[in-house]
Amino acid sequence: MNATEIIHIIGTAAFALSGYLVGVRKRLDMLGVMITAMLTAIGGGMMRDAIVGRIPLVFTQNTAWAVIGITLLLAWGFKLQNTRKRELAAVFLWADSLGLAAFTITGAQAGLALDVNIFGVVMLGFITAVGGGIVRDVLVNDIPMILRKDFYGTVSVIIGLALYGLDKLGWVNPFTLNLLLFGGYVLRLWAHRVAWRLPKF
Amino acid sequence: MNATEIIHIIGTAAFALSGYLVGVRKRLDMLGVMITAMLTAIGGGMMRDAIVGRIPLVFTQNTAWAVIGITLLLAWGFKLQNTRKRELAAVFLWADSLGLAAFTITGAQAGLALDVNIFGVVMLGFITAVGGGIVRDVLVNDIPMILRKDFYGTVSVIIGLALYGLDKLGWVNPFTLNLLLFGGYVLRLWAHRVAWRLPKF
Amino acid sequence: MNATEIIHIIGTAAFALSGYLVGVRKRLDMLGVMITAMLTAIGGGMMRDAIVGRIPLVFTQNTAWAVIGITLLLAWGFKLQNTRKRELAAVFLWADSLGLAAFTITGAQAGLALDVNIFGVVMLGFITAVGGGIVRDVLVNDIPMILRKDFYGTVSVIIGLALYGLDKLGWVNPFTLNLLLFGGYVLRLWAHRVAWRLPKF
Repeated sequence: MNATEIIHIIGTAAFALSGYLVGVRKRLDMLGVMITAMLTAIGGGMMRDAIVGRIPLVFTQNTAWAVIGITLLLAWGFKLQNTRKRELAAVFLWADSLGLAAFTITGAQAGLALDVNIFGVVMLGFITAVGGGIVRDVLVNDIPMILRKDFYGTVSVIIGLALYGLDKLGWVNPFTLNLLLFGGYVLRLWAHRVAWRLPKF
Repeated sequence: MNATEIIHIIGTAAFALSGYLVGVRKRLDMLGVMITAMLTAIGGGMMRDAIVGRIPLVFTQNTAWAVIGITLLLAWGFKLQNTRKRELAAVFLWADSLGLAAFTITGAQAGLALDVNIFGVVMLGFITAVGGGIVRDVLVNDIPMILRKDFYGTVSVIIGLALYGLDKLGWVNPFTLNLLLFGGYVLRLWAHRVAWRLPKF
Repeated sequence: MNATEIIHIIGTAAFALSGYLVGVRKRLDMLGVMITAMLTAIGGGMMRDAIVGRIPLVFTQNTAWAVIGITLLLAWGFKLQNTRKRELAAVFLWADSLGLAAFTITGAQAGLALDVNIFGVVMLGFITAVGGGIVRDVLVNDIPMILRKDFYGTVSVIIGLALYGLDKLGWVNPFTLNLLLFGGYVLRLWAHRVAWRLPKF
């Protein structure tokens, strides 16, 4: 398994967990929680595949499904639904930030492989990363997170630009990819902590 | 006309009617009602076609449009908009359940034809069946039905799994397809009647 | 540059402006406003490209991005965000109506090039024109404009039908295209002014 595949698994698990937590918070029934977890985990990738015109990878590969299933079993087994609300919010933040960073990387790499321009690379990373979250938020009637505070979408764009730059320099390898994953994850958590807001008009 | 084409027509008519009823309930103007009916009827199929990367069938075939038009004329002619609210709700339930079962079958069959894995077959059936309803609900600012009670999405998944199993056994023929359509329709109505809810967390 | 390309640029600029104004009205932060402007401008085209199964044009061409950037700089430079609410609403109406007409034409022309039926031509024009607006409205939690009054979607359908007719007559040339653009723009503004509503049920 190469670095991209591992990062994809990490992102899938992280987003499955974040979707699960949203489902619990919204008091959905068991199927609603599973759907929310699943859509958050595969939604972005399916959007990306639909946009570039190919059959979704999750229809021909079983990895993501195994990862989602295992994640949900673990979450349920650890009785995450009985955790206090404040701790749930913290776990959600970590999971969602990790998924954001991971899926930006794998999505942007798909763009690099297709030889699109810098906007395409950044957008494919962005869509793969926030797509699942948008579907999840819209379905449960929340305003999607990318339009609220905390630099959510900006982090994805920054990671995408960084990967594009690394590719132009020929510096894409497992080490830099993992560095980018860790860096993006930390950046997102830091932006949330500092509560850094872009200036309003 | 083979069984799949007939089932597709049934589903198109059923969802056009369900979308029409939602438009009337939300007091939309004539165009809003037509758009709602149309999107519910073709939305799922267009999503499925976009996902598998082909030009939507409704852009090259005129059947669905004729079906939608006839359905709307009949609905308007029978003055469905003047019916009492309770009876409208019952008609909506029947129409939507029939569309759900029918489109799950045709969507899942598209997946079988493309040789995708079991998740792909079930998801394509699911998306074709609930896609139009999701677009309709989100556009009129309702929470999509699949996340509320009543086993809505589960029935679609069960039908999809059943069709996958029938295909593996080599038992797909007009008789079993119609049996599956009828069975899925009844299952959905029964789930609603029994008000069977999955356990919450 | 041919007429279609110019009309595409006009539409991109108009929708970028309309999205910008919505972002300001909703008091989003700087990134939220940029995302709203961007999605409104490219959203419809990306939906159209995903539906016909090709890589989005904006991933291989840089024109739209330059147009969006210039539009946003001009909007910000002219301190549009400090304008009085009534005048902002007027500017929004002009921008959105121009984008609607322009993108209907370019989207429908894509359909003509692909040889789809009349429903396909009209739908592709419709989706390219209203797609960005739908995404924008749903993301900021408004009911999309096409379901409210004022003939919004009807104008797009009329323009699409007109272009289909022109194509059948062999009368598509820069003059008729610009005439259609101007005519559609005026029609939309007039429908709004007259507050013409389709009869409710």
